[in-house]
Amino acid sequence: PETSPGIGYFEHPAAALPDFGQDPDDRIFFRRIRLRFQGEAFETMVYRMQIDWNSADSGEMKDMYIGFKELPVLGTLLIGNQKRPLGLDHLNSSRFNIFIERPLVIEAFNEDARRIGIASYNHTSDESYAWCIGSYLMENVTLDGEYIGDTLQASGNARLVHSPWYDEACDGRNYVHFAIAGMLGHPDGDADPTDANSNEGRFRTRSEVRSQSRWLNTGRIPGADWYEVAGVESIVNLGPLQFVGEYQSTWLQRDDETVGTGPDLHFHGAYCYVSYMLTGEHVPYNRTSGTIGRVEPRQNFFLVDSCNDGVAAGWGAWQLAVRYSYLDLTDQDIAGGVENNVSFGLVWYFNPYSSMQFNAVYGDIENHEAVEGFTDGHFTALGTRLRIDF
Amino acid sequence: PETSPGIGYFEHPAAALPDFGQDPDDRIFFRRIRLRFQGEAFETMVYRMQIDWNSADSGEMKDMYIGFKELPVLGTLLIGNQKRPLGLDHLNSSRFNIFIERPLVIEAFNEDARRIGIASYNHTSDESYAWCIGSYLMENVTLDGEYIGDTLQASGNARLVHSPWYDEACDGRNYVHFAIAGMLGHPDGDADPTDANSNEGRFRTRSEVRSQSRWLNTGRIPGADWYEVAGVESIVNLGPLQFVGEYQSTWLQRDDETVGTGPDLHFHGAYCYVSYMLTGEHVPYNRTSGTIGRVEPRQNFFLVDSCNDGVAAGWGAWQLAVRYSYLDLTDQDIAGGVENNVSFGLVWYFNPYSSMQFNAVYGDIENHEAVEGFTDGHFTALGTRLRIDF
Amino acid sequence: PETSPGIGYFEHPAAALPDFGQDPDDRIFFRRIRLRFQGEAFETMVYRMQIDWNSADSGEMKDMYIGFKELPVLGTLLIGNQKRPLGLDHLNSSRFNIFIERPLVIEAFNEDARRIGIASYNHTSDESYAWCIGSYLMENVTLDGEYIGDTLQASGNARLVHSPWYDEACDGRNYVHFAIAGMLGHPDGDADPTDANSNEGRFRTRSEVRSQSRWLNTGRIPGADWYEVAGVESIVNLGPLQFVGEYQSTWLQRDDETVGTGPDLHFHGAYCYVSYMLTGEHVPYNRTSGTIGRVEPRQNFFLVDSCNDGVAAGWGAWQLAVRYSYLDLTDQDIAGGVENNVSFGLVWYFNPYSSMQFNAVYGDIENHEAVEGFTDGHFTALGTRLRIDF
Repeated sequence: PETSPGIGYFEHPAAALPDFGQDPDDRIFFRRIRLRFQGEAFETMVYRMQIDWNSADSGEMKDMYIGFKELPVLGTLLIGNQKRPLGLDHLNSSRFNIFIERPLVIEAFNEDARRIGIASYNHTSDESYAWCIGSYLMENVTLDGEYIGDTLQASGNARLVHSPWYDEACDGRNYVHFAIAGMLGHPDGDADPTDANSNEGRFRTRSEVRSQSRWLNTGRIPGADWYEVAGVESIVNLGPLQFVGEYQSTWLQRDDETVGTGPDLHFHGAYCYVSYMLTGEHVPYNRTSGTIGRVEPRQNFFLVDSCNDGVAAGWGAWQLAVRYSYLDLTDQDIAGGVENNVSFGLVWYFNPYSSMQFNAVYGDIENHEAVEGFTDGHFTALGTRLRIDF
Repeated sequence: PETSPGIGYFEHPAAALPDFGQDPDDRIFFRRIRLRFQGEAFETMVYRMQIDWNSADSGEMKDMYIGFKELPVLGTLLIGNQKRPLGLDHLNSSRFNIFIERPLVIEAFNEDARRIGIASYNHTSDESYAWCIGSYLMENVTLDGEYIGDTLQASGNARLVHSPWYDEACDGRNYVHFAIAGMLGHPDGDADPTDANSNEGRFRTRSEVRSQSRWLNTGRIPGADWYEVAGVESIVNLGPLQFVGEYQSTWLQRDDETVGTGPDLHFHGAYCYVSYMLTGEHVPYNRTSGTIGRVEPRQNFFLVDSCNDGVAAGWGAWQLAVRYSYLDLTDQDIAGGVENNVSFGLVWYFNPYSSMQFNAVYGDIENHEAVEGFTDGHFTALGTRLRIDF
Repeated sequence: PETSPGIGYFEHPAAALPDFGQDPDDRIFFRRIRLRFQGEAFETMVYRMQIDWNSADSGEMKDMYIGFKELPVLGTLLIGNQKRPLGLDHLNSSRFNIFIERPLVIEAFNEDARRIGIASYNHTSDESYAWCIGSYLMENVTLDGEYIGDTLQASGNARLVHSPWYDEACDGRNYVHFAIAGMLGHPDGDADPTDANSNEGRFRTRSEVRSQSRWLNTGRIPGADWYEVAGVESIVNLGPLQFVGEYQSTWLQRDDETVGTGPDLHFHGAYCYVSYMLTGEHVPYNRTSGTIGRVEPRQNFFLVDSCNDGVAAGWGAWQLAVRYSYLDLTDQDIAGGVENNVSFGLVWYFNPYSSMQFNAVYGDIENHEAVEGFTDGHFTALGTRLRIDF
């Protein structure tokens, strides 16, 4: 990637290390290698256990829950490590997302998405409304699988999905999706050093590029007491053409006691993208979960040397997309950074279970906390990903 | 959990850390996430491989063995990482145990149970007698999967099971189990620092609560040369009512050379519990392994909103239990602690493969090696666990 | 194992540690515990994902690739972590190899074999010629699954296999295999400390014994710029009797700038073995991959106590083998060591999927970089391995 000097300092901010301020390294790596076991049992139970071994020496816990189905009022009740219902782009499976990395705002306000919690999922019988209500612990247990601490840092979350138009006659080629989501969190801004738990009042994200450091980062905010996130989502899909947009806003209240506390804070961000299937397929939609699904190419990719007739070929499906993304994590005494981003994407679907993605990202960061005097920077990055699931 | 001051020092004994002497933190975590592959091959071979990823970034090796069946005299011969036959409550699968954690004495004298070894399992043709004879390396290879060192720290183990009464007519609702078990171990009490191996002459356990530290702990005993463990087990089961008790005694001889050696030592402990299935089921018994099995509720748990007839429901199976536990790890110059414990348990079986456990534990520790002047303490703790296997 | 003093210093070369210069410890461990998922999809795709958990707390990534089959010209194209086509003994599965550890030269010039790359596999329609051409990143990503760094350290590899004789009439009991392989690598001998990547211009290996340290090791060679490896392979198989031999030579050019650079270097090595199936089976051969396959005993091992007729038994298959191995990693200013090795092997195949191996190794190392004044040493080692796959 090409970068301006500031980015080097955001990537390698430790003055003691030899690569302090150097530009980010090129990276080739396995992004996700997940093993999933899921099923249903005794007609009314469900379970899923999923671990990611992209770094084989250190697994990461992903979905890890059990649940009961068909309950009155509650619908499906899931207990365990699961995604918090905040941000359409996080709820979409990474297997189906069109861009390689998630938008700034989505990852910033719901980092890694999964937490230990309990949540109820239900929908109306005509599937035009669906909702989720849940409560979650705020600490990310991806690595160690345990939440330790006397201070209960927890959140309440809810999401309501409405799909006023879903063109059944065309097998769902046309649809409109709206959703609102909210979160009320109570971090331990006090972060007493004799407690085992850390202050979860922190927002941070990578810049839609898999860099080593998170270039936008508020740090753990001293005195963070309560915060509220509100989000709106929309999709308009017309056959091969899709418009998607989301906006999220976060208000954080601080106490008056903690060392380093300050005034209340407001952060916010948004993104929108348009995508088009050159080969005419459409991106499917699941009304009860309010998320997009798996693209099925009309013709799978293959190249076979048939002895008499020369080479027979199928070319899979091709999709173009462009996304604009914005995030503002700088307010009052906190300078997490402000970023504007544009991404271009191309997806080549070999078949429903594998594809190759190409992304070009241009980003501009400003109002960042100074590192060696730099408060802004810009970068361009190229990324490609090969994906298969089975 | 509520605790007296001493417990804080037993939990956080490092004076240099900020939480020195603080009371134990609340903990919410995944206790076991195990993946198991097992099978039979070529009619006479068996294998099992099982890894636990409760902490996803660091797996733990559990059963990892292969074996031959139907051998003359030897019966089934297993080679690899497997449970040592010491302590009924350890031989019972954690999936079937009634209390959340194992009794003090069982874990203290057979920590984590599994070791690399070779063992023969056989039984009489009427199944009234069954036995196991094996030899095991004493180092726990759960994490690194390897035993390194020139000093061979090994043990010989044996267990003989007798089930004089097993009510076949009632499908095993009534039975009586007796067993004796013995272990002869030869740790490397010398623990030469130029050797890679550590002195396995050490007994320790958590207090039937999943605390961070092991509150009872003899440490690695200098000069530990040989030790012998003898144990007796009993179960009397009358339909829904079950009485269980075990006693184990350990004698340890020390050499006269090692720095810090001392007189010979004696440690011992016991537990007993009574459990009752409120819904009338019974805890099954396996005569050839001498262990308890999987409870099958008469009616599985479900709650379904049937359109016309209101809510249909099944309530699963319910079980109550109370356990008393004792362990004395203090003798002569070694002050590992003496604990008395009472636990109350409630188990709600949703179906044969999942259940929820509730435990309340009150414990009292005394004669513990002084930490910041404290030699005793008491605590109460509440625990709950959700369990599923498939 | 028995060793001379020099070996102790090669095994424990850190003067600061208490075991400095001590003889190697005995070791009992799990060598490989692999889980593999593989399959084909949509008729023209293949994939394999395989992780090794021999040390349960830290997995190792093995094969991790996807690919397309039946392509014109390219044949099968694999993308991802896969074996580099250098060294017959590395290409043979560890499940089928006759000796416990691979020969010195094979591991030295192709450490751990697997790298991220892209490779094409094809063969003539009569299968008498087969070939592989590929390009690979040089960093071993076994543990962390990622390649980071602005300097692209990559290699080009190729292998051509010819099997002029393959006795179809006898089901492949007799065959002759020849192959040549080459590698052109461009390490970052400069190894700028502000780069994340390390100099991959390094050759090292254990001494056909699973010791803790690699006793033969050139270290990261300063100024390593380009290197070329050429290898030849041969097998002659006559029923139960097999002769195998390989020779590899490496030429390394150095730049004139890097601190510590020196003259160009030449390393080389070879091995040969003869094996004999006492029970008359043969080691099968796969012409399209140019590797050996799974031995199928004529009679599987079993011992069953049949009530009337005494003990019925089958004894599996038995194989004897002896191997001579040579490696020279010492040239000019680099003293990686020179080793001569003789190994005796016995394999007892219980059935096609499990066996037990016994190896005795005698080795002699000289011209090693001095550790505490020692530049040579010799050792004998005994090893046994129990193997099962399913």
